[in-house]
Amino acid sequence: MTGKINAGRFFEDFKLGEVIPHATPRTITSGDTALYIALTGARNPLHCSAPFALSLGYAQMPIDDLLAFHIAFGKTVPDISVNAVANLGYADVRFIQPVFVGDTLTTSSEVIGLKQNSSGKNGVVWVRSTSVNQDQQPVLSWVRWVMVHKKNLAAPAPETVIPDLPAFVAAKDLRLPAPFNVHQEIAVATGGRYFWEDYSVGERLRHPAGLTINDSDHTLATHLYQNNARLHFDAHLMQSTPQGLRLVYGGVVISACRALSFEGLENALSIAAINGGTHANPSYAGDTIYCMTEVLDQWTLPHPQLGALRLRMIGLKNIPPDHVENIKTSQGYHPNVVLDLDYTVLIPRKGN
Amino acid sequence: MTGKINAGRFFEDFKLGEVIPHATPRTITSGDTALYIALTGARNPLHCSAPFALSLGYAQMPIDDLLAFHIAFGKTVPDISVNAVANLGYADVRFIQPVFVGDTLTTSSEVIGLKQNSSGKNGVVWVRSTSVNQDQQPVLSWVRWVMVHKKNLAAPAPETVIPDLPAFVAAKDLRLPAPFNVHQEIAVATGGRYFWEDYSVGERLRHPAGLTINDSDHTLATHLYQNNARLHFDAHLMQSTPQGLRLVYGGVVISACRALSFEGLENALSIAAINGGTHANPSYAGDTIYCMTEVLDQWTLPHPQLGALRLRMIGLKNIPPDHVENIKTSQGYHPNVVLDLDYTVLIPRKGN
Amino acid sequence: MTGKINAGRFFEDFKLGEVIPHATPRTITSGDTALYIALTGARNPLHCSAPFALSLGYAQMPIDDLLAFHIAFGKTVPDISVNAVANLGYADVRFIQPVFVGDTLTTSSEVIGLKQNSSGKNGVVWVRSTSVNQDQQPVLSWVRWVMVHKKNLAAPAPETVIPDLPAFVAAKDLRLPAPFNVHQEIAVATGGRYFWEDYSVGERLRHPAGLTINDSDHTLATHLYQNNARLHFDAHLMQSTPQGLRLVYGGVVISACRALSFEGLENALSIAAINGGTHANPSYAGDTIYCMTEVLDQWTLPHPQLGALRLRMIGLKNIPPDHVENIKTSQGYHPNVVLDLDYTVLIPRKGN
Repeated sequence: MTGKINAGRFFEDFKLGEVIPHATPRTITSGDTALYIALTGARNPLHCSAPFALSLGYAQMPIDDLLAFHIAFGKTVPDISVNAVANLGYADVRFIQPVFVGDTLTTSSEVIGLKQNSSGKNGVVWVRSTSVNQDQQPVLSWVRWVMVHKKNLAAPAPETVIPDLPAFVAAKDLRLPAPFNVHQEIAVATGGRYFWEDYSVGERLRHPAGLTINDSDHTLATHLYQNNARLHFDAHLMQSTPQGLRLVYGGVVISACRALSFEGLENALSIAAINGGTHANPSYAGDTIYCMTEVLDQWTLPHPQLGALRLRMIGLKNIPPDHVENIKTSQGYHPNVVLDLDYTVLIPRKGN
Repeated sequence: MTGKINAGRFFEDFKLGEVIPHATPRTITSGDTALYIALTGARNPLHCSAPFALSLGYAQMPIDDLLAFHIAFGKTVPDISVNAVANLGYADVRFIQPVFVGDTLTTSSEVIGLKQNSSGKNGVVWVRSTSVNQDQQPVLSWVRWVMVHKKNLAAPAPETVIPDLPAFVAAKDLRLPAPFNVHQEIAVATGGRYFWEDYSVGERLRHPAGLTINDSDHTLATHLYQNNARLHFDAHLMQSTPQGLRLVYGGVVISACRALSFEGLENALSIAAINGGTHANPSYAGDTIYCMTEVLDQWTLPHPQLGALRLRMIGLKNIPPDHVENIKTSQGYHPNVVLDLDYTVLIPRKGN
Repeated sequence: MTGKINAGRFFEDFKLGEVIPHATPRTITSGDTALYIALTGARNPLHCSAPFALSLGYAQMPIDDLLAFHIAFGKTVPDISVNAVANLGYADVRFIQPVFVGDTLTTSSEVIGLKQNSSGKNGVVWVRSTSVNQDQQPVLSWVRWVMVHKKNLAAPAPETVIPDLPAFVAAKDLRLPAPFNVHQEIAVATGGRYFWEDYSVGERLRHPAGLTINDSDHTLATHLYQNNARLHFDAHLMQSTPQGLRLVYGGVVISACRALSFEGLENALSIAAINGGTHANPSYAGDTIYCMTEVLDQWTLPHPQLGALRLRMIGLKNIPPDHVENIKTSQGYHPNVVLDLDYTVLIPRKGN
């Protein structure tokens, strides 16, 4: 019998307003941070130099924003998306406070929207997930929505509630690190000469480096995040799919693009928000990921030495960014586009 | 000259009662624990959440039982099994006390049995290996037996001594974590709703998840354990074998199965013993491992809140567990069975 | 536009005497040390047993010499060798003091030599790189020289200055760990019975173990070192090269050989210097690395219990060392030789 195997929730199991606690709280270690560098090639000194982090005013070195996000997110998979037909989107991802080695993250999700599809066979579930540290302080919060199968087709459709989601996290809602001392040596530690004032809306950065994904590294990363979605790990299962291969977890692609875009965005020290994102095409082992950035907006902040840039991160596979002009046409995405992510970074201002 | 290369012990080099100290003491770090999660996908909160471990009464978070075992075991390879024709079995594996980050493990082995084979070309050696921490307290103890070549065929046969080994570690011999506070929040942290009373002898759990092994990840794991058996690492050497491929270390398969069996055994927090095991067929990179569990026995313990389950862990390759009915027939093991392990876990009882 | 992408320095951008600070200071963690063991199979107890390190007189366990070197070296790549036509050589690599978990390494390079080639299209740049810890104490120093493209062919040739480099780091210049207590238990911890007096000049050690490199593990290692040279990571880019494959970073081969040569050099606890080295042929994923050692010289030291051995480390691919007699002929290197490294180790003396 397999009655003790948790089959996960089906559409009719989600109730509006319900809060679902997720299993496997996770204490972050320096092993996680070293693995993250090895898996992505990240070179942001804020996450690999303790003296640099201290010089900015941090009490200790914070871990990479995306490492925290992937670990927090991974916890939601068994309860939210194990029976998902599709991961439809995410929005309003807020990096509320830094995460440090030694912190323990625990994630829960509140059901904030439900809409049964007209077929009656599945529906869309919106959840707001929040990850708190050991002091119960929220460190990350995000909304995602997934299409989930019904198991019992006779179950009544719930009242349709579609949450009102912001197109992007407004500048006033960004949580700034405090005190954050901008100083002259930042450019030495990052190797980057460009600051907030140097970027302009509409500007495109074609980051030249590429990163080829292999089966071991994408599965190591996804396991590190304790994301247990089977399609990333089970090659035998995936043989029966059209592509016949394990799918690379979208978070692996996001992290690859973040690391690749270090060249040209060296001083974009922190991610403050992810406003939305689309995994336009799947990635598989063997694909080489490239990245292009477009500056969407440029905001001052209530901090004299920091500004924000709203950026569009375009992930490409197997084509360098200087060979791609149109990301999207009326036909949809360019077939080599794997990621279209709208996010906001904090970046020091010049002349302070 | 290669006279300084340690060729390892041959059958005639083992003397009954001799204690062999093994090289390379190892201090456990949080890097080891992070890598273990990345390599296996382990989600047991006892080994990844410090607050959870403390809530149970542990002084700090213990490392995964199998991580400790593989590291302790790896040390014995250069002295015991480098000239082995075959690893014949192991028994009486006792997890005596938890291992923590910062502990240093040192392993030694006592020769407890010898039997020259009738061919006169090799013989069987039984050793009891013990791993102690920096305070010289035993943390792990196990018996294994290997068939080893003779180098000098003229060496006299030793007196045959075959040790008396228990079929399983009896409930009274299991070392319990003290104090171990069972509490209501365990199910939240593990995500599992089933406790000791919920399982019944003869019950089978067909864990649905699969894990495909790749060359990088199995060699990273085996290197992490500092197990230097060449057949796991040297593809050039292995080209001349029938399969032509590097063999996956059996411990990698055991850890994969333990992680895969989390779904359905979420509250089986600790391994107390391994009673015996067979690697029924070899595994290679590209194989997808699945796992099935059979409940062999169910014991109360001298602890009001803990029980023990004796379990059979069946590892399969390239076939999901719901497609396998007969693990073993009169012809021997099903060709897709890679592991048949008899082990004992500690699991909280309900209603405390 | 890609104007913000750092294109790296061209030949005419290097000025004699200039000191170039490199980005991305790095705090060493126990995650780095665990990954180094997993990536190489290193078994030297000095770097994996804290009690052993303390017994020798170290204040804490030092990290592997080559892990420190690769991390320090990786920082120079974006500024020095990103436009290199060829990495021509390195010399005078000094391991000045041990590096510990918690140390932060920062590297800078001084331009100590320049020579424009007769073609006028490129030139050779010599730099002395120094890595300091958080107390600004030098821990590593080395010279390398690279051939770099000119971007502006009209730029005037600099005055030719070729630095005077030692053929090897002399015994009197080796920095010894202090106090370094040699004791009887070293052989137990290393598993090696041979000490300084047991080796003789001209002796060859044919280390039997082989290590097959895979794409994930070599890219994980190179990313861990934050070496961002594209030819190691970008398979799409490398498809247009004659071999069509990502190149394995030379440091990965050096570390593989160091770990493989543990069998026979168990007591060669520390690397004191690298005198020079050649990557005779490239390595690719799928290659199996083997190693052979030749004893070049044998020095007493101003320490009663330590001696030095100057060694030649020959790295081979896809051929075991007992099948190779002539490393180099008048035709050049044997086609399976990948590394010819001249280095110096510290090794305890007997009878102390």
